[in-house]
Amino acid sequence: MKGVIKTLCSNADIVDLTHGISAQDVMQGAIAWQTAWKFFPPGSIHVGVVDPGVGTSRLAIAAEIGEAVFICPNNGLLTYILEDQVPSRIVSIENPEYRLAATSRTFHGRDVFAPAAAHVAAGVDIDRLGLRIDGLVRLPLTKPVVSTDSVIAQIVYFDVFGNAYTDLNEGEFTAWGAPDVTITVVGTRVIGPVDSYGSVAAGDPVALFASHGRLEIAVRNGSARSRLGIKVGDAVQIDRTSVNS
Amino acid sequence: MKGVIKTLCSNADIVDLTHGISAQDVMQGAIAWQTAWKFFPPGSIHVGVVDPGVGTSRLAIAAEIGEAVFICPNNGLLTYILEDQVPSRIVSIENPEYRLAATSRTFHGRDVFAPAAAHVAAGVDIDRLGLRIDGLVRLPLTKPVVSTDSVIAQIVYFDVFGNAYTDLNEGEFTAWGAPDVTITVVGTRVIGPVDSYGSVAAGDPVALFASHGRLEIAVRNGSARSRLGIKVGDAVQIDRTSVNS
Amino acid sequence: MKGVIKTLCSNADIVDLTHGISAQDVMQGAIAWQTAWKFFPPGSIHVGVVDPGVGTSRLAIAAEIGEAVFICPNNGLLTYILEDQVPSRIVSIENPEYRLAATSRTFHGRDVFAPAAAHVAAGVDIDRLGLRIDGLVRLPLTKPVVSTDSVIAQIVYFDVFGNAYTDLNEGEFTAWGAPDVTITVVGTRVIGPVDSYGSVAAGDPVALFASHGRLEIAVRNGSARSRLGIKVGDAVQIDRTSVNS
Repeated sequence: MKGVIKTLCSNADIVDLTHGISAQDVMQGAIAWQTAWKFFPPGSIHVGVVDPGVGTSRLAIAAEIGEAVFICPNNGLLTYILEDQVPSRIVSIENPEYRLAATSRTFHGRDVFAPAAAHVAAGVDIDRLGLRIDGLVRLPLTKPVVSTDSVIAQIVYFDVFGNAYTDLNEGEFTAWGAPDVTITVVGTRVIGPVDSYGSVAAGDPVALFASHGRLEIAVRNGSARSRLGIKVGDAVQIDRTSVNS
Repeated sequence: MKGVIKTLCSNADIVDLTHGISAQDVMQGAIAWQTAWKFFPPGSIHVGVVDPGVGTSRLAIAAEIGEAVFICPNNGLLTYILEDQVPSRIVSIENPEYRLAATSRTFHGRDVFAPAAAHVAAGVDIDRLGLRIDGLVRLPLTKPVVSTDSVIAQIVYFDVFGNAYTDLNEGEFTAWGAPDVTITVVGTRVIGPVDSYGSVAAGDPVALFASHGRLEIAVRNGSARSRLGIKVGDAVQIDRTSVNS
Repeated sequence: MKGVIKTLCSNADIVDLTHGISAQDVMQGAIAWQTAWKFFPPGSIHVGVVDPGVGTSRLAIAAEIGEAVFICPNNGLLTYILEDQVPSRIVSIENPEYRLAATSRTFHGRDVFAPAAAHVAAGVDIDRLGLRIDGLVRLPLTKPVVSTDSVIAQIVYFDVFGNAYTDLNEGEFTAWGAPDVTITVVGTRVIGPVDSYGSVAAGDPVALFASHGRLEIAVRNGSARSRLGIKVGDAVQIDRTSVNS
């Protein structure tokens, strides 16, 4: 992909976001993109190739969001970004002029997405890539189950350190209004929410709001995933601490 | 290596091809290079450091192939590229002027290959690196066993997704002339060759020709390596489907 | 982090040193930094984010060493570099003008170190980042136990190939004056010190001085870690070979 981009746009500045997404895991890619894209310069072209449907009828798309352009399969990779952004234009990448002459059936990253990104970087307007389309595929998202006395969140992914991230955002938690809570993950009491890992001893499980705002379950200087034996989909139970308990 | 290159040629544009080659696996490096090099701009300098023989008498070489220059140990890394390319010049990198003053016995990537690449990038002709040599080391390559009724191919490597690649190319298969075949890998029937992963259901084994032309054995949205329990060297049996079967 | 740097200093040339440091392993990061930093161009800004104490009271620091600037948590990452370098200036990064407006409690790489590095790359003097401080945290280092007849070194880390590195440097060994020695690692006799891996047969354990000068225990074309069953902290016993043995 980098060779293709450099061939078509020699002064393109290529930055690797991550090569650590698990194979075929569109959800994990969607979260990584949401977390990172706002920190890139205006005018950046973002390319995502978590693409289990390559070679099927799934579309290749370019989406203009603010000053950024996203180029990827239409498979939900933009799900989280679309939670608070509305694309100004979405096109289906179809124009053979802007893909490699010999397009394989198994590596559109190299043959479709990279050339499209390089041409856009070189000044091609995205409307020249293909026809406008109306909407984008979005992955179904879980939401925390909120009641008066408890919030039940769900683990949605793990990072490379084994920290777990849930579908509960700090804003929702604050709105629920319970600074004093008891957090339980698959039978384990977890201290928190605290301000930083340093609030607990090494090896202790802890809950805190991560840098992207999601409730995170961690083990200080360790892996929550292996230490607590937790997995994606597991419930994180948050109970209001009763005054007489 | 990048520090050395940037020190000697500050405007060099460095692109990582891969850091995912298994330790000491020259064959895997040779395949990765063949797959990728043609997609880089003319004039690119390609550096390869899969180098189990570092510190022995194996030569360090620079090979000019078309407008590209390849810099690597003379250990077979260019085997696949040499299948359809003839170097115009090959030199043994010997000139102490173009290596680091203190050359270690264990890291020629940093001390020999990176400085040579940086000097060539800065305009040094490869003939100044050392004397011309005639040929290059090539790894022994397997070939599919072709008969009237069957082709027996061999698995030569796996990618990071666990997809297996064989020594059978699409051109040979087409020349053999059998659109209707039965494919078996270590006792498992595999559907194909199909056009794309999407031709089978998730979890099904499938055969198709990969983006570099080799017959690939995959499992849709999974790892063929772990699902089929296959390894490098295993046979992929392709039989003409008889009309009365 | 790269997005932040490119946003604040668009012409910064970003080079990844390594993403292979084990989670939270400050010692391993300290060794990687010592090994690599001298090969980068004068004026380079080095950023290190092995940061188990993020969110605690540990300082974020910028240290000027020669023409280089190091930006990292004050947690020992500079330990090995400080063995033979004296910083000319050390400042605590405190000035809110040079960090992201919304600084998280868990990702100072992005919110503190990357912006500081970008501002310094863009010409900001490190004294503007915060107040001078006097010293830096250093990790406790082991030293080989040297007697007349033997040296007992210790394994301090492994590289990705499974090669082990000890706390014994070639200079100390030479000063001890014993070209003829017997080396034993956890019960296994190891040939050496030799000049290169090629001095032994494939699969044989071997000792040699690595490219950074430390005594290395390797297995030719294999992993010393798994083949010898060794771990960090294990002793490497070096005995003078007696003339009558």
